[in-house]
Amino acid sequence: MATVEELKLRVRELENELIKCQQKQCAMEDGLHRPKIDRMSEEVVDSNPYSRLMALKRMGIVDDYEKIRTFTVAVVGVGGVGSVTAEMLTRCGIGKLLLFDYDKVELANMNRLFFQPHQAGLSKVEAAEHTLRNINPDVLFETHNYNITTMENFTHFVDRISHGGLEEGKPVDLVLSCVDNFQARMTINTACNELGQIWMESGVSENAVSGHIQLIIPGETACFACAPPLVVAANIDEKTLKREGVCAASLPTTMGVVAGLLVQNVLKYLLKFGTVSYYLGYNAMQDFFPTMSMKANPQCNDHYCRRQQEEYKKKEAEQPKVEVIEEEEEIVHEDNEWGIELVSEVSEAELKAASGTVPDLAEGITVAYSIPTKDTVSGETVEETEQSLEDLVAQMRQL
Amino acid sequence: MATVEELKLRVRELENELIKCQQKQCAMEDGLHRPKIDRMSEEVVDSNPYSRLMALKRMGIVDDYEKIRTFTVAVVGVGGVGSVTAEMLTRCGIGKLLLFDYDKVELANMNRLFFQPHQAGLSKVEAAEHTLRNINPDVLFETHNYNITTMENFTHFVDRISHGGLEEGKPVDLVLSCVDNFQARMTINTACNELGQIWMESGVSENAVSGHIQLIIPGETACFACAPPLVVAANIDEKTLKREGVCAASLPTTMGVVAGLLVQNVLKYLLKFGTVSYYLGYNAMQDFFPTMSMKANPQCNDHYCRRQQEEYKKKEAEQPKVEVIEEEEEIVHEDNEWGIELVSEVSEAELKAASGTVPDLAEGITVAYSIPTKDTVSGETVEETEQSLEDLVAQMRQL
Repeated sequence: MATVEELKLRVRELENELIKCQQKQCAMEDGLHRPKIDRMSEEVVDSNPYSRLMALKRMGIVDDYEKIRTFTVAVVGVGGVGSVTAEMLTRCGIGKLLLFDYDKVELANMNRLFFQPHQAGLSKVEAAEHTLRNINPDVLFETHNYNITTMENFTHFVDRISHGGLEEGKPVDLVLSCVDNFQARMTINTACNELGQIWMESGVSENAVSGHIQLIIPGETACFACAPPLVVAANIDEKTLKREGVCAASLPTTMGVVAGLLVQNVLKYLLKFGTVSYYLGYNAMQDFFPTMSMKANPQCNDHYCRRQQEEYKKKEAEQPKVEVIEEEEEIVHEDNEWGIELVSEVSEAELKAASGTVPDLAEGITVAYSIPTKDTVSGETVEETEQSLEDLVAQMRQL
Repeated sequence: MATVEELKLRVRELENELIKCQQKQCAMEDGLHRPKIDRMSEEVVDSNPYSRLMALKRMGIVDDYEKIRTFTVAVVGVGGVGSVTAEMLTRCGIGKLLLFDYDKVELANMNRLFFQPHQAGLSKVEAAEHTLRNINPDVLFETHNYNITTMENFTHFVDRISHGGLEEGKPVDLVLSCVDNFQARMTINTACNELGQIWMESGVSENAVSGHIQLIIPGETACFACAPPLVVAANIDEKTLKREGVCAASLPTTMGVVAGLLVQNVLKYLLKFGTVSYYLGYNAMQDFFPTMSMKANPQCNDHYCRRQQEEYKKKEAEQPKVEVIEEEEEIVHEDNEWGIELVSEVSEAELKAASGTVPDLAEGITVAYSIPTKDTVSGETVEETEQSLEDLVAQMRQL
């Protein structure tokens, strides 16, 4: 039987071990953090996480890099493109990030950058916030673990886009669509048209070898409902794409490139340097990068889009020289005589039945899908659906 | 004074707390791992980290994706481009990675992807291996924490490139240069010329807004000594670049894009799909992506390069239809009448003194720096240094 002295010794031993264990645990958790930094410094020392960004001023690229801290960006979809987008913005020292996603991290996501195996099972926004906060505690994060396409969530989504800025009550500066489906893109489009909110679209094809980014200025450039969404043709048999029940392929390379091009466009837009791209495609098979721009469609199905177009026209008439963003120096809107190419799932009959205008496309770009046929969309007249391809093209020519 | 009973109770409490603490610690450490996977499966389940890569076969992009596991790639330089390159290859399930770097992680690196603040102070290869092994334990890692440019390390570097394949004794399949200085690039060039080792070069400009990747096949395409290294012109005042003692700017966007384009080229080369690019530039200011290809220079200063050229000629003569890699379908080697542009640090006098041939450059590409003047390079005749720009151009025309 143990004596009092033996027991006391054991208690002391256990207390020491416990303290050591707790200390190690604290170190493991604490090691993940760096202290917050009040003001971005230009100082060139190894301990300054902003020195290489502030150097952009000295290099003559950006006039006022610190301004990055005043901006709020909403990232919708925190998957292969959205997570890397959020990480790049975090490392660049953006003021505030709003993250929207309803998905969980799975091991099946490990072929793309950002998430790690130990995060499997966590919600994507929760896992992303944890990682991003460790990388840069100077950024403010607001996460929403829900599907924006349901009625109730949509209302909340619109509210946060219009009031969730760095200063609560102010709108965000930019919305980035990094979602992987048509419905979610249409939802973002609707919200941004309603709010007059400038946003950027991104997408990667289901065969993993092409992608694109697009800047959408409501009323000025084509919105997502103005024209069928575009993709870059990858010169492969399109029949292999989008078959029912087939698991989409993805690559960390294509998604990393698309995220990089997207955030580069965001930085150029927010910090006013270089040429902001309206549409930039990436065809990985041929290393081909088509660019183009498209005007808003006066016959757009979205009435908020048409209203924004009227307001834009009014504004333009009032002050003839409005500079919203820097103009593209070379407009690469190639006249390829309506080189329209459609993915195989869209038959000509389906196209006939489709609403919206078929755009004048740059070489190498195809439409991703037709606008859903009328029976899935309520409240519209049959008339609009009966335009022929010829009518659409003629209509487009008049623009 | 405590009784035996009280002490026993305290011991039990402490033991329980200690076990809990240790369990949490184990979970924190273990949580970082996933079990190894023997064979890549096509099964479309959330728990399969390879399902989205194996889908590339079903999509008709890649014939035999599993082959990725048989390849070994050496990544030299584990900084802004190299670390993301290594992560992409790891997530793609490459067989083996060799990592070379002598640098430590600093907070000043946090404006680029991959490293995290808690890794500050660790060697880059050590920190990278830890993260990458957690992401994908199926990959074999070999790390070398040294500077490849010293005589002793160079010998070891050459040895590992030629013997460090997946099967020890066999050469690696590809060397990737992700270094940030001229000397290290020249060292890799020398090693690869000596070994006849195919490699890819990557680089990002000091103003952070342009970059490039380049495939070098010794004896066939221009090596790093055949022609001055090229960069993409960013349409900004080049005088702001490369001033003495000025801290270079960098962006996670540009580096992420360059890493993505590099690894995409690696996948296309190793898994034989799409068109492998010989040279692909990225100008972020205009979203402009020049491509070109350059033949080896018969007057190259590197005698191993000249020897590889002879061997290549012999091989070509023996079997007239050698297909090393897929040919580029469209050669974008634009004839811009010697549109040579030099960065400001190179005066015409310096160029006169420089050896090597000035290449015929595609639009938007400029030479990054002149070949170092003779007094820094030993064992060469004065004669070679006295070529005028005119001579060089005339010589180039004859090729």
